[in-house]
Amino acid sequence: MDEFELIRHYFDRKSAVSDVIVGIGDDAAILAPNPDMQQVQAIDTLVEGTHFLPQTDPADIAYRALAVNLSDIAAMGATPKWMTLALTLNEVDQQWIEAFANGLHEAADRYKVTLVGGDITAGPVVTVTISITGEIATGAALLRSGAMAGNGIYVTGTIGDAAGGLYLLERNETDDELRQRFLRPTPRLQIGKALVGRATAAIDISDGLIGDLNKMLAVSNVGAELDVGLLPISEALAKCFNHNQCHHFALSGGDDYELCFTANDADVALISDVTRIGKVNNSKQLTCRLNNDILEVDDSGYCHFK
Amino acid sequence: MDEFELIRHYFDRKSAVSDVIVGIGDDAAILAPNPDMQQVQAIDTLVEGTHFLPQTDPADIAYRALAVNLSDIAAMGATPKWMTLALTLNEVDQQWIEAFANGLHEAADRYKVTLVGGDITAGPVVTVTISITGEIATGAALLRSGAMAGNGIYVTGTIGDAAGGLYLLERNETDDELRQRFLRPTPRLQIGKALVGRATAAIDISDGLIGDLNKMLAVSNVGAELDVGLLPISEALAKCFNHNQCHHFALSGGDDYELCFTANDADVALISDVTRIGKVNNSKQLTCRLNNDILEVDDSGYCHFK
Repeated sequence: MDEFELIRHYFDRKSAVSDVIVGIGDDAAILAPNPDMQQVQAIDTLVEGTHFLPQTDPADIAYRALAVNLSDIAAMGATPKWMTLALTLNEVDQQWIEAFANGLHEAADRYKVTLVGGDITAGPVVTVTISITGEIATGAALLRSGAMAGNGIYVTGTIGDAAGGLYLLERNETDDELRQRFLRPTPRLQIGKALVGRATAAIDISDGLIGDLNKMLAVSNVGAELDVGLLPISEALAKCFNHNQCHHFALSGGDDYELCFTANDADVALISDVTRIGKVNNSKQLTCRLNNDILEVDDSGYCHFK
Repeated sequence: MDEFELIRHYFDRKSAVSDVIVGIGDDAAILAPNPDMQQVQAIDTLVEGTHFLPQTDPADIAYRALAVNLSDIAAMGATPKWMTLALTLNEVDQQWIEAFANGLHEAADRYKVTLVGGDITAGPVVTVTISITGEIATGAALLRSGAMAGNGIYVTGTIGDAAGGLYLLERNETDDELRQRFLRPTPRLQIGKALVGRATAAIDISDGLIGDLNKMLAVSNVGAELDVGLLPISEALAKCFNHNQCHHFALSGGDDYELCFTANDADVALISDVTRIGKVNNSKQLTCRLNNDILEVDDSGYCHFK
């Protein structure tokens, strides 16, 4: 099969969504976000080659690639609508592509996003690029820049799990729950939308809590105090690692794709599956406390006792 | 510099476009295609590694990556608006990145498209993915599927130049004009827009005239007769190659990014810089003629005398 046949065969599924006027199969997709104007989207890739880590299930690669993108949409409080895919492959292994497509469709169905275009190229290593378009009401998007002194700092779900899962995977050990948290993160789209009009700032945790929180604080021009003892640690993580390791993964481990947000506490009292972990202040610095001790946070997000 | 600093430093230029509400620097870009609803766009890449062909000027890589994408927008008759970039690099060579950014901005300025988000990852070979959003009036987009028997077949500009340029480049020979045609193709955005309401079908020539025309004929469920003697060959190509070579490059050489379109001849009489090269018929086959001979076209797009 050539590129066009591959796309048609594995990725072109008739969409029931009436605002996709033309999906896969033309030069670009035609979309109708509103009655007065349509939109066109295209994606293309220039690649030098492709080759892939054989042990990773292609379905997991696809699922994760989409989930990671959706997490960005979730962090804006937006609703995902359409995506385009640029896939670089080193060989046409149809079994691999089919598994990849299945993983992609599984995530796409779960999060109600429609694949509207794609591009497959040859290269030495497999490369997956997804571009997503989402929608949100005018002025409603959650930015990183709105955190204000006095706001509470919250995270969704539990954090550190993906880093713990990766740690085990790299040592050929495994814990099913932590492994899944790394391979198939859950984009927090519902909570993101629920935070619109309530949170003052939001970011998704891809690089680690400390690193991502620091980005949000910096653009908001504020500081914060974090209570490390309040970090939401899963039972699965606590079962596999000691306290210090759990804190380390939760503070500096990336890949959880939970949301970190700030809000007036009263505004988010009814939002479930979130944990208050600290408070925004005007210090322009991030301070971490554990019980009555102050921890020093280094650039890698690791906290040391002062 | 880390990824975020690199993006900020090299790619974040304040936009004068009022419909870019938030560009680079948040989790996703916020766009305002109309007053009632905003849009959000994000891009992310999963890559296995990066490494690059050292002899290619990074400015040319960037320029070409954008031009190739814009050609898809041109083939729809649409107006490009916003783009996102996913760049995989094997090392942080700031000189390389700066040259790349300059090439990208040069093309972006020329074609009036705004970079609204980006993602830089590490990998063994440089990989560039651009995602573009364009706009078009409802129902106006040029599809591949509208070609009708009796329509003339047209191409813009001259064809075969990029393939000739690549042929010379691969042999360490050079012709400046042909080389530029390969490295910096011109997306036919103006002609694309002018064809809205006039052309019945359109496609951009990325894989070669025969291959791309065949795609358009197939989805339109028609055939065509092509007069090889009418193919628009540039003086530069004719200077470097003999007749047969010129025809071969024009018929099967990709990378020109000219448009091929079909139309009632009267409807496009006033469109300049286009050449009529044949006629659509109901045969469901593509026949190539040269003078009074019929040529046989093989799968690679090469024409043989029958």
